[in-house]
Amino acid sequence: MITTKAPSTLQEHFRQVESLIRLEVGGEYSDLAVDLHRLVSAGGKRIRPKMAILTGNILGAENDRLIHLAAAVEMLHTAILVHDNLVDSALLRRGLKILNAKWSPAAATLAGDYAFTIAAKLIAYTDSMAVINLFSETMSTMISGEMTQISRKQGIDNLKDYFNWIHSKTASMFALSTSAAAMLSPVGEETVSRMQEFGHLIGMAFQIMADVRDFTAHQFTLGKPVGNDLRQGTITLPALYYLDTHPEHPTLQAIIHKKNVNKGKLDELINAIRSNGSTQKAVHTAREYIQEGLAVLDYLPDMPQRRELEDLAKSVIG
Amino acid sequence: MITTKAPSTLQEHFRQVESLIRLEVGGEYSDLAVDLHRLVSAGGKRIRPKMAILTGNILGAENDRLIHLAAAVEMLHTAILVHDNLVDSALLRRGLKILNAKWSPAAATLAGDYAFTIAAKLIAYTDSMAVINLFSETMSTMISGEMTQISRKQGIDNLKDYFNWIHSKTASMFALSTSAAAMLSPVGEETVSRMQEFGHLIGMAFQIMADVRDFTAHQFTLGKPVGNDLRQGTITLPALYYLDTHPEHPTLQAIIHKKNVNKGKLDELINAIRSNGSTQKAVHTAREYIQEGLAVLDYLPDMPQRRELEDLAKSVIG
Repeated sequence: MITTKAPSTLQEHFRQVESLIRLEVGGEYSDLAVDLHRLVSAGGKRIRPKMAILTGNILGAENDRLIHLAAAVEMLHTAILVHDNLVDSALLRRGLKILNAKWSPAAATLAGDYAFTIAAKLIAYTDSMAVINLFSETMSTMISGEMTQISRKQGIDNLKDYFNWIHSKTASMFALSTSAAAMLSPVGEETVSRMQEFGHLIGMAFQIMADVRDFTAHQFTLGKPVGNDLRQGTITLPALYYLDTHPEHPTLQAIIHKKNVNKGKLDELINAIRSNGSTQKAVHTAREYIQEGLAVLDYLPDMPQRRELEDLAKSVIG
Repeated sequence: MITTKAPSTLQEHFRQVESLIRLEVGGEYSDLAVDLHRLVSAGGKRIRPKMAILTGNILGAENDRLIHLAAAVEMLHTAILVHDNLVDSALLRRGLKILNAKWSPAAATLAGDYAFTIAAKLIAYTDSMAVINLFSETMSTMISGEMTQISRKQGIDNLKDYFNWIHSKTASMFALSTSAAAMLSPVGEETVSRMQEFGHLIGMAFQIMADVRDFTAHQFTLGKPVGNDLRQGTITLPALYYLDTHPEHPTLQAIIHKKNVNKGKLDELINAIRSNGSTQKAVHTAREYIQEGLAVLDYLPDMPQRRELEDLAKSVIG
């Protein structure tokens, strides 16, 4: 498609990230690599690499290393996505139902490992020990969080556990994207730490909104039944806000204690959460995270890329 | 146990590697971490970290970074072992039948990922970009090799494919152990490249001997039926040497073409391979790799640790 509009810096940079990822994933090895290539090409929002690139552009990161960081973050996300599908059995991601449905657990494990190794090679290219350390710390945070989650004897029943969990599974990688981009820029530790905070806040809002959409979106858009998290026994913010006002609700208590619940009772509970204001309250919390994040950006120079980063942050609420 | 014998440098160093691994694996997160801790503690031959430590001691690597390299290599090996169990379904490793038998595929995937993240943190500690790059390249070689292997339309039927495969799955990690230890030492590129060659050669012998033992060991020692590789459709060096002299053997051809073979025919073939000299010929090949490896060591200064490294290399034939 020919466009007369000059591409923005983000678009230009992003094309480089896409090429780099496709080059690294290749397709030479096997059917598995071809499938992984297809998964990566199918895209998704690419919000993590976009946050890295915009942050690096604002702060003056060297382009080549920044592109490799952005591609590494996207590949780490893909690796986690593939392995995560094994863990939580929600099959439809990025509009492609192919992957784990078609792959055996062994093949999915291997494909995820392959994505990890590509991420590791890309991050090493940044040639920054600080970035490499942060990358492996973040991987560790994400995996440890998931291990804590799957070995829980009962479901999450309080905000503290929920916020810890979504930090480890989502916000930590957003914080990596922005703070590593700052580390590749000629700025001091204070700016790195502010950008880490910014990434964390936007990542928290991002996960809360995903959890809200699980209740509010149409089944067709979701590609899975409404309230799927709760049906799988996973308790998220809207359910926790409902619990606040209905602490003894028998169905919710049964889910927390990992007891079987029949479909009728589940449907009732999901409808109650959708209609009593719990989802709106969760959206409000996400909005507060975004506002706090935008306030952090006030320290940055006022320039077009800053507006783009602000718009990207606001788009999380959508 | 109290011993009056002064510990050798290897033993001293090795105790540090063990403590480091146990510290990193922790046990805080979950049942999964506890199981992983148990798997790591159960040991195994630890030949990879021993090769790293002896090489580093001979060449003058700084102790702390060397210990972290050795621990990283052992954790990478553990990660691959856990994921590999999903892939090849051989269950009994390190004398513990617990792991994948007890873990779901999802849990085993996660536990392996956790081991990967520990390896990544440990290797970052070496603070050497050359070592970090080699580490991620080696991970990539191993995973790509496995992907090629599982997507083969027919079994291996020639020496070139077999040697490529065992390089990627085993010898590449041995080469990493020795060459990364050299990279952490005050030596030039030529020594690094010689130690890489040494590690590769010993690793090739190591895998050939494992493949030989699959045919020659007692079922009790193996913890799986004799000829298990062939029963799983995996063709290794003894079978390839048998193929040399019996190119049209119908059972072997059926296995190569991934056709079903009945147990009686399989038992016959395995007995034929055990008794016609194919396994001895494979041992001879392994011995040649060891001899070539020992010749590489002639370039090193003559010192007690060099003798220990030679003994370790020879122990592969056992």
